[in-house]
Amino acid sequence: MKRILFTIAYDGTNYYGWQKQNAEDQKTVQETFESALSRLFKQRVECIGASRTDRGVHALGQRAVCDVETSIPEERLLLAVNTYLPPDIRVMKAEFVANDFHPRYMAKNKTYEYKIYNNSLRNPLLRNFTEFVYKPLDEALMNEAAKLLLGTHDFKAFCSTGSSAKTTVRTIYSAEVKRNKDMVILSINGNGFLYNMVRIIAGTLIYIGMGKLPKEVISKMLETGERKIGGITASPCGLTLLEINYF
Amino acid sequence: MKRILFTIAYDGTNYYGWQKQNAEDQKTVQETFESALSRLFKQRVECIGASRTDRGVHALGQRAVCDVETSIPEERLLLAVNTYLPPDIRVMKAEFVANDFHPRYMAKNKTYEYKIYNNSLRNPLLRNFTEFVYKPLDEALMNEAAKLLLGTHDFKAFCSTGSSAKTTVRTIYSAEVKRNKDMVILSINGNGFLYNMVRIIAGTLIYIGMGKLPKEVISKMLETGERKIGGITASPCGLTLLEINYF
Repeated sequence: MKRILFTIAYDGTNYYGWQKQNAEDQKTVQETFESALSRLFKQRVECIGASRTDRGVHALGQRAVCDVETSIPEERLLLAVNTYLPPDIRVMKAEFVANDFHPRYMAKNKTYEYKIYNNSLRNPLLRNFTEFVYKPLDEALMNEAAKLLLGTHDFKAFCSTGSSAKTTVRTIYSAEVKRNKDMVILSINGNGFLYNMVRIIAGTLIYIGMGKLPKEVISKMLETGERKIGGITASPCGLTLLEINYF
Repeated sequence: MKRILFTIAYDGTNYYGWQKQNAEDQKTVQETFESALSRLFKQRVECIGASRTDRGVHALGQRAVCDVETSIPEERLLLAVNTYLPPDIRVMKAEFVANDFHPRYMAKNKTYEYKIYNNSLRNPLLRNFTEFVYKPLDEALMNEAAKLLLGTHDFKAFCSTGSSAKTTVRTIYSAEVKRNKDMVILSINGNGFLYNMVRIIAGTLIYIGMGKLPKEVISKMLETGERKIGGITASPCGLTLLEINYF
C-alpha cells in the first residue's frame, strides 16, 4: 500500500465544494477526484483532503492523500490521474509520502487569495472568479486594516455558525491588499482558517474600503468576538486556495 | 424609431458564437441579446452586430445596433438591458446614434487579444480563456514575427475557407506579443480581419515561438497566399474582441 499526496487545482464553479455530500445530485470535487482515482487504480479509492473549500471556491494548491496498491512509478502518476479527470480539475503534483502523512493535521500554514473586481460595470469574463464591487475601494486603507489581523487572535467574530472547530484561535502570518488596475487582491497566510473566515475578512475589508465601516472594526471584532459588527460574507467565487505548506 | 448602439461584453464559452443560427439547439449571443431587447422594449427587435465572433470566442467590445420605439432615456438604457441579460453577457455602453449608423461598414479599426497560457501544466481556472502551450515560447521572437504583419497585405494565407469576403487585402496597424509571467499575449489592431485570421496568426506565431517554424514564414505566407505553410488555427477560447473604433 502506498500513500500518494496530490496537489490539486480546480475551478469550483460547477461543484458543491470539495467535501463529499450525501445528496446524489450535488457533485463535489472530492467525489469526482475519487472516482477518477478508482478508475485509474482499478480499486475503490477514498481520499482525505486538506481543506474543505465551499461551493464555488477555487483552488490552485488543494492537497489530498489516498492509499493505493499500484506499480505506477511516481513520475507517471500526474499524467495518469489527469487522463481520468474533467478539464476543470487538474493534478499539479503527485508524490509518494510516508504512510502516516496527514494533509490536514500536518499543515503548517495555508495561503488564500481573494479577488475583487472593482469597476462601475461587471466583466462577464471574470464573473465566476471575482467578487464584484462597483463603489470605488480604497485599497491602501484596506491594506492597513488587513495588518490588524496579524498575529495570534481569537477569530470567533470571523467564523460562520456551523463550524466544528475546537478552538477559534488562529495565527495570521501575513495579510496584504494590493490593486492591479480594476482588480483588488487580498493575500492572506495563516496556520489555519475557520469556516468562512477568509470570506468574512474579505467582506469586512470591502466595507472598510467603501467607507461603510472604520478600519478599527477589525480590532473590535477580535476583542469582542461579535460577528454582526463586521461586513458581509463575501461571495465564494472570489476565493482561491493558493498553497498549503507542511512541517 | 431610434437606433441604439450597444457595446457588449460576453463570455463566449457557452455560445455558438455571435451570429444567429438556424439550428434551434445552438444558442448564440445575438439571439440571446435580441430576446432580451424584445422583452425589454415589448416589440420584436433584431440587431446588426459588428463582428461575427466564432463559437467560444469572447468579447469585451463587441458592437451592435437595433432600431426600437422607446421612451427610455439614453442614460437608463444600459441598466435596463442588463436586467434582461444572463450574467455571461453584459452591455457596457448604450447610446443613441444616427439612423444610418452601421456597426460593420463604418468600423475604422478593431483590436483583438489572443492569450496563451505557457506552462508545463494546464491551469483549470484559465481553461476557457486561454490557449494552452506547454513547450516554452520565445515571446521576443514571436513579437519580431508579429511585426512582419504590419501594413497592407493580401492575407489570403491567413483565412479559413468558407469566408465570404470580397477581398483578402487588409491593413494591420499594430501587432505586439508580450509576456506576463506564464501568459503570452498577442494584441493586434487592423482595419478588418478575415475569417479565423487572428487565430491563424496566433497559431503561426505559436509555431514560431516553439521553434517549429522560422519567423520568415509570415512573409512567405503573405507573398504566396498559401495557408498550409503556416501553423495551426489556434483555439477560439484564447481570443477576445477588445475594441471597435468608428470613423
